[in-house]
Amino acid sequence: MTGSGSLCIVGLGPGPADWLTPEAALALERATDIVGYEAYVARVPQRPDQQRHGSDNRDEMDRARRALALASEGSDVAVVSGGDPGVFAMAAAVFEAIEHGDPSWRILDIRVLPGISAMQAAAARLGAPLGHDFCAISLSDNLKPWSIIERRLIAAAEGDFVIAIYNPASKARPARIHDAFGILRSRKASTTPVAFARAIGRPDEYITLTTLGDADLSLVDMSTLVLIGSSETRLVARDHRRPWLLSPRSYGAK
Amino acid sequence: MTGSGSLCIVGLGPGPADWLTPEAALALERATDIVGYEAYVARVPQRPDQQRHGSDNRDEMDRARRALALASEGSDVAVVSGGDPGVFAMAAAVFEAIEHGDPSWRILDIRVLPGISAMQAAAARLGAPLGHDFCAISLSDNLKPWSIIERRLIAAAEGDFVIAIYNPASKARPARIHDAFGILRSRKASTTPVAFARAIGRPDEYITLTTLGDADLSLVDMSTLVLIGSSETRLVARDHRRPWLLSPRSYGAK
Repeated sequence: MTGSGSLCIVGLGPGPADWLTPEAALALERATDIVGYEAYVARVPQRPDQQRHGSDNRDEMDRARRALALASEGSDVAVVSGGDPGVFAMAAAVFEAIEHGDPSWRILDIRVLPGISAMQAAAARLGAPLGHDFCAISLSDNLKPWSIIERRLIAAAEGDFVIAIYNPASKARPARIHDAFGILRSRKASTTPVAFARAIGRPDEYITLTTLGDADLSLVDMSTLVLIGSSETRLVARDHRRPWLLSPRSYGAK
Repeated sequence: MTGSGSLCIVGLGPGPADWLTPEAALALERATDIVGYEAYVARVPQRPDQQRHGSDNRDEMDRARRALALASEGSDVAVVSGGDPGVFAMAAAVFEAIEHGDPSWRILDIRVLPGISAMQAAAARLGAPLGHDFCAISLSDNLKPWSIIERRLIAAAEGDFVIAIYNPASKARPARIHDAFGILRSRKASTTPVAFARAIGRPDEYITLTTLGDADLSLVDMSTLVLIGSSETRLVARDHRRPWLLSPRSYGAK
């Protein structure tokens, strides 16, 4: 409990090294310990002088406490997260662990290093779907009641936001995305553009452009970021290629 | 009109080089022409073999058309944008220009290169305010009626989203942020945490932590990202330092 260590919560981005910021790369290089979900730890080049602490995806709080304990003991810890650690990821878990944990954790040197999120990677491939007001909603109801997710989907439709859906499906609850589309289909035009952006930046990257009415939800898995347009979102055609998806900066008559 | 050029819409991030992705750095290195708002063009290291086309911030469509014309003539153009070009920035302008422009622009090789957005940079400094569902709203009513902004602020409050406000003020319309806070103050608890994150990553970076009820709106300018918590957003105290701002992953009773 020396408090002399440090903890960086590092955003690895969606996958490719050319989306990793120099700040994040330097933090990984300087760390004595790498903590994270094992698939993210595996992305960090292995080094004999660095301890690796990979764990299963579900125990985020355990992982956060382990990282804080290591930093308390004097280690320079990098907690790694896919995408941006601040967006539905490890940053919140670390500060929750601090809130309820050892008082000495509050004096640790802690930094959050942002990364490119799945939403931004998907948007970049698609064109400019987030060019206008948008919201991001996680469909995971492990830690929040379905009623608040429902309330947010309704509000997102009423506000005519572009909607980015994180964690759209899981083996435990495959029906969530069907429930979400049910809510949106009863409130938005069936012609609203929808994109499924799967594993963006990875070798198996795959994009499906469809509409709210026609979307085949069996294509959605936990590696998919689902984007649903506003009433203004539209396609810009190209020759022999997938059209661009555009949420223009202007709105309505103005 | 050879169509043999290329156009990259490059996110420079909030400012510091260590938030610039390697992908963006490479695109800047390879470009024959740099097009953008002059303050962003000035961030790209000057080179004698590279043409620089800086312009005033307001003529985004002009800038987009100029970039597309240069690419059509065979140039390798980098359109530079602060933050993420897909979030309230140049990507939408380029695709709008294509939509209404020369048909040959549709066959150009165009790529969007994501960057760290102001919202993410602010969140990283603050702790984990975007750890849960959030939305992003631009208060600029240059291209959209105030009524849709109002509708979105109401929906954001009704959905109990964390709210990130872009373009909160301008010399032309300083009252917009007052109007927005009026809407939110009548719908959310006055104790809701609020952060003003000004010029994050720049030498004059400055953070103000306050509440919805107490916020001094005279501190808000066009370089400020305004973050307003959900009902769950709270402070995690530290000794002798600004508390962390946390939107926990859990919600309500669950």
